[in-house]
Amino acid sequence: MNFASDNTAGVAPPILDAIVKANEGFALGYGNDDATARVTKRLADLFEREVAVHLVATGTAANALALAHLSPPWGAILCHEQSHIATDECGAPEFFGGGLKLVTLPGTGCKLTPGIVGEALKRGPWGGPHHVTASVLSLTQSTEAGTVYRPDEIAALSKLAHAHGLAVHMDGARLANAMVRLQVSPAEATWKAGVDALSFGATKGGALGAEVIVFFEPARAAGMAERRKRAGHLLSKHRFLAAQMEAYLTGNCWLDLAAHANRMADRLAARLAMAGIDPVWPVDANEVFVILPRRVDERLKEAGARYYPWESRALPEGKTVPDESVLVRLVTSFSTTGGDVDRFADIVRGR
Amino acid sequence: MNFASDNTAGVAPPILDAIVKANEGFALGYGNDDATARVTKRLADLFEREVAVHLVATGTAANALALAHLSPPWGAILCHEQSHIATDECGAPEFFGGGLKLVTLPGTGCKLTPGIVGEALKRGPWGGPHHVTASVLSLTQSTEAGTVYRPDEIAALSKLAHAHGLAVHMDGARLANAMVRLQVSPAEATWKAGVDALSFGATKGGALGAEVIVFFEPARAAGMAERRKRAGHLLSKHRFLAAQMEAYLTGNCWLDLAAHANRMADRLAARLAMAGIDPVWPVDANEVFVILPRRVDERLKEAGARYYPWESRALPEGKTVPDESVLVRLVTSFSTTGGDVDRFADIVRGR
Amino acid sequence: MNFASDNTAGVAPPILDAIVKANEGFALGYGNDDATARVTKRLADLFEREVAVHLVATGTAANALALAHLSPPWGAILCHEQSHIATDECGAPEFFGGGLKLVTLPGTGCKLTPGIVGEALKRGPWGGPHHVTASVLSLTQSTEAGTVYRPDEIAALSKLAHAHGLAVHMDGARLANAMVRLQVSPAEATWKAGVDALSFGATKGGALGAEVIVFFEPARAAGMAERRKRAGHLLSKHRFLAAQMEAYLTGNCWLDLAAHANRMADRLAARLAMAGIDPVWPVDANEVFVILPRRVDERLKEAGARYYPWESRALPEGKTVPDESVLVRLVTSFSTTGGDVDRFADIVRGR
Amino acid sequence: MNFASDNTAGVAPPILDAIVKANEGFALGYGNDDATARVTKRLADLFEREVAVHLVATGTAANALALAHLSPPWGAILCHEQSHIATDECGAPEFFGGGLKLVTLPGTGCKLTPGIVGEALKRGPWGGPHHVTASVLSLTQSTEAGTVYRPDEIAALSKLAHAHGLAVHMDGARLANAMVRLQVSPAEATWKAGVDALSFGATKGGALGAEVIVFFEPARAAGMAERRKRAGHLLSKHRFLAAQMEAYLTGNCWLDLAAHANRMADRLAARLAMAGIDPVWPVDANEVFVILPRRVDERLKEAGARYYPWESRALPEGKTVPDESVLVRLVTSFSTTGGDVDRFADIVRGR
Repeated sequence: MNFASDNTAGVAPPILDAIVKANEGFALGYGNDDATARVTKRLADLFEREVAVHLVATGTAANALALAHLSPPWGAILCHEQSHIATDECGAPEFFGGGLKLVTLPGTGCKLTPGIVGEALKRGPWGGPHHVTASVLSLTQSTEAGTVYRPDEIAALSKLAHAHGLAVHMDGARLANAMVRLQVSPAEATWKAGVDALSFGATKGGALGAEVIVFFEPARAAGMAERRKRAGHLLSKHRFLAAQMEAYLTGNCWLDLAAHANRMADRLAARLAMAGIDPVWPVDANEVFVILPRRVDERLKEAGARYYPWESRALPEGKTVPDESVLVRLVTSFSTTGGDVDRFADIVRGR
Repeated sequence: MNFASDNTAGVAPPILDAIVKANEGFALGYGNDDATARVTKRLADLFEREVAVHLVATGTAANALALAHLSPPWGAILCHEQSHIATDECGAPEFFGGGLKLVTLPGTGCKLTPGIVGEALKRGPWGGPHHVTASVLSLTQSTEAGTVYRPDEIAALSKLAHAHGLAVHMDGARLANAMVRLQVSPAEATWKAGVDALSFGATKGGALGAEVIVFFEPARAAGMAERRKRAGHLLSKHRFLAAQMEAYLTGNCWLDLAAHANRMADRLAARLAMAGIDPVWPVDANEVFVILPRRVDERLKEAGARYYPWESRALPEGKTVPDESVLVRLVTSFSTTGGDVDRFADIVRGR
Repeated sequence: MNFASDNTAGVAPPILDAIVKANEGFALGYGNDDATARVTKRLADLFEREVAVHLVATGTAANALALAHLSPPWGAILCHEQSHIATDECGAPEFFGGGLKLVTLPGTGCKLTPGIVGEALKRGPWGGPHHVTASVLSLTQSTEAGTVYRPDEIAALSKLAHAHGLAVHMDGARLANAMVRLQVSPAEATWKAGVDALSFGATKGGALGAEVIVFFEPARAAGMAERRKRAGHLLSKHRFLAAQMEAYLTGNCWLDLAAHANRMADRLAARLAMAGIDPVWPVDANEVFVILPRRVDERLKEAGARYYPWESRALPEGKTVPDESVLVRLVTSFSTTGGDVDRFADIVRGR
Repeated sequence: MNFASDNTAGVAPPILDAIVKANEGFALGYGNDDATARVTKRLADLFEREVAVHLVATGTAANALALAHLSPPWGAILCHEQSHIATDECGAPEFFGGGLKLVTLPGTGCKLTPGIVGEALKRGPWGGPHHVTASVLSLTQSTEAGTVYRPDEIAALSKLAHAHGLAVHMDGARLANAMVRLQVSPAEATWKAGVDALSFGATKGGALGAEVIVFFEPARAAGMAERRKRAGHLLSKHRFLAAQMEAYLTGNCWLDLAAHANRMADRLAARLAMAGIDPVWPVDANEVFVILPRRVDERLKEAGARYYPWESRALPEGKTVPDESVLVRLVTSFSTTGGDVDRFADIVRGR
């Protein structure tokens, strides 16, 4: 019953098979191999346009490299106060970006709205020479709360951002989970809604460690190859990175893996609801956030369940965590089983 | 006949097996898994002392993180002018180190000597506030010329460095190949000879992508976990990094893989010598540098051989590359076959 | 009627005289002159202990150099959300600090309290490797609201900070104005209350451009000479920087200049109170913040008065800016005249 | 007899007068004052074109800000191995430039030639992703050896640089001294010869501390205001910086001050030649480099003469420093007197 994180899962079988299969013969290093060429083509097909593609092994690298490329050192990244870039990357965007600044904003269910962003842009102070310049709006899809931005929401935010001269970045560490829910094309969920650069994650979805930085205007990625290299993020045996991403994107593999995770989250939410425990936000992706009575929490821990408590600042207005209760995050993945879900729910229900 | 680089080889079978085997069940991310604990212990055993251990996926990351940790931003790293950190990392040490400086020194066969380093330390100018301060001596083992520092050579260089307040870093991307030649213990080849921090590579030796930064005084690594994280170099599914390093260091795996590569280099050198072509430096590890007549070079290329030309600045005094000839680097690896070596030599000999 | 900023004033006569007088003969550059030696001694006497002293020309440089020296790149500076370092230095601390992070906190009258800081330290998340580490508490004295921390307030904040491993920095751009109000010794207002490093400003007080970074534990300043130099902040004709600071600190010059500014602020507040306009915070130093009806604001502007509107987030609980009104900041300086103050007040009172 | 550096002199009277005179009334801070507007216009007139102008207090700041603006972090600055940016700024360009690299080249009399630069550009390796990219050629005018580039020499170097995609920076800390010798217009000596950005120094020429970064294509300076601010180099009482530069550039003040310094250098060289001591390079500006017998050196020191020994690497081919001799640098300035020169020469001649 491991609901701690989607990165506690291993590697999805088709991706592991691809790694093994890639281990045949010699191949030029540093991305000059055939698999890298194929995955670049596959991404262009997927997004229905030419794209600039840079593979890396971690999501933090993908985010920090992309943000540093989109913003001058005197820029400010606007993002949610619970976004991964703001809270869980130990200052990576600041480091890569030469000392840029993250300006964190509130928002229910970890979602930003045009109202929130617009007020921040209006209030400021922004701009030179005394103040940093708002340079990038970064959205997480799915969000850290397991909610999902709809294409029209992204479009409205992007329009606002672009009107103020900001670029739009999407942290898509869990993009697949959002795509399953949205049922639109990858193009519609990203650049057609105004996204300029995407950190497209495969690791949480089932890869060993593979993410791709996608720039929808290839010219905007000029210099990114050097930036990646000097950050130590150009793998020498690059074919194994490419093989992971290629397998992930072959057919519907990425969506199938995410669909399973989402189904498990839906099932978990449904079972908990039967026990009178409703999610605090809509379950849009592969995460369920619920408030558990302390004694239930203890019972689960004793039974070996793994998950983390969560902070309550982004709760919907009026909703609070009662005494003797705890807000927890439950994450499902491609490898979560229905049995684990049911067992967890049974324990909650005291069975 | 691929002698382009040891990173054109794939993954050695025991290491690939370990990756596959690591893919069982759930494991905590970010190094809180059992394999990471085991590999930490293994490294302590190997080096006969407590060590601080940080795994990363690339050699550039290992080097740049280690150097940034050893030097203040106003420090200077003394290194050979052909060292990987100076020529092939696109400024990674400078980036990680907040704008530190690399001071490059000459040396036959890519080896530094106390004479060369001593003169640089004497000449300067060094020190504040106008000049940068010499802070680290970085040695490559095996060197970029495939030569190997003997323990007493390292000790003499370390003694000089320490006497001037410099720390000693070793870029051990090909440490295993050196160890095979030296026939001393890992401790004797490193900290007992004065090395303070080591970038210990497994990738070129046969891993998919695994390097470990070893600090021989663990206290000196304080803060490295944060430095690694904010550089995007903490892998979430860290068990797969640990599994590679564990397999590499199990028994004599690492030395056996290197011994094969070295034997192939020796065989290649011997066969070429029979054709009247002697290596320009001693073949100490898994690299052979020879001067080929242009027409032989063309014949090899036509036959499909892969390798790179090399620059001639580090040639021994008096040795030059004649017109119509080219200095080339031939790299062997764990996966080089005797057949490939012999075929290459045969083509050279015009058979 | 210039109340825009204390840096719209020129240079106080004794300081300008000192610059002129320093222009005699040759002097070694870069701080190796006699005036620099004297000012170092003077600061030690003033603070009743040995101190490390580095002069620079701007307050932003003093703050950013000090903070970068106190914090690792993965550190977080806790400060008020309206502090100069957070809002008016275009990201200087982040740049100098290799990408460190500023964590901004609320507080009435731009003052932090142990309650506010304590909650931030408790809430976090802090610490490695995923989160930045709280490393410095930075206090502004006088604050951006013209209020003043009492020594026991500083001591309570410092005690809390030190207990959590944070260093304490004081941005003393207007330290003199606070000292006049506090009537304690410089030692009592700084290191005896727990301050580790001080940006001690003379520019706003009457210098042309002179600030000094004071480390109360000299050993902690090791490397600061290099850090200053490579930031371009070591003036070659350093004697002129030293001469300014020496004149500023001769006798009670610095306190006399500040006392005048404070008196003008008190007088301004008193006159405005007679017109029914009370300051929104206590007038502790040389700044008066009042809410003006829009038509009064217009009348003043027409009469040539210069001052800036201010943002209202730090207003005391319950206090708001009514429609058709504006919160403004009025700054006095050593060169403000009683005539200007009275004329301003007369215009407000419609005379 | 102070020939240690031109920054051991004080402030030239017209410039000091201007500082005193600027101290009248209130003025907006941060460059929004009238003097700054005037000096901007004056520079446009001087260079016969619109220019972007940013004043700072030190030459290191001017150089490092300009270079960071011209080069990406993965760029390399090509410069002479004895250039101030390479040897005397404690790594400032690397710090400001996010870890860029300086590639130092040899050259007699501290001058680069198209041959030397061309060979470096050809040899490399340059370019991505493994190697840094040559991005800027930086020339010092007058050079660190007191020699002067002729306009056609600059044009030839610029043409080569531009053809390879490099920008051209000129460190003009002693530009005035060169101008006096060249007798061409400022435009001809800079942008008409291909210079893209200029660090134009007044400090060594007689200012208290004033330099200006000039971009000849104003668009290229976009963002420089922010870069300067976050480096702590925007002075609040900016009028005093502007006043210095304005006085320096009023009429022929700057050239007159430099002409005096140059004349003193010529006179010194002539007198020493009469003693059989010839300069090792042509005396083009305000520096004389001679080889002194050790006993003469001692005699001078005893008599109170101040100057520094110099390193001998840039000596013309075939010229060496004999045993019992020392290569020294003698710098004159606007405040050097003929009496000091003659007395120095007399001591050399044993009178």
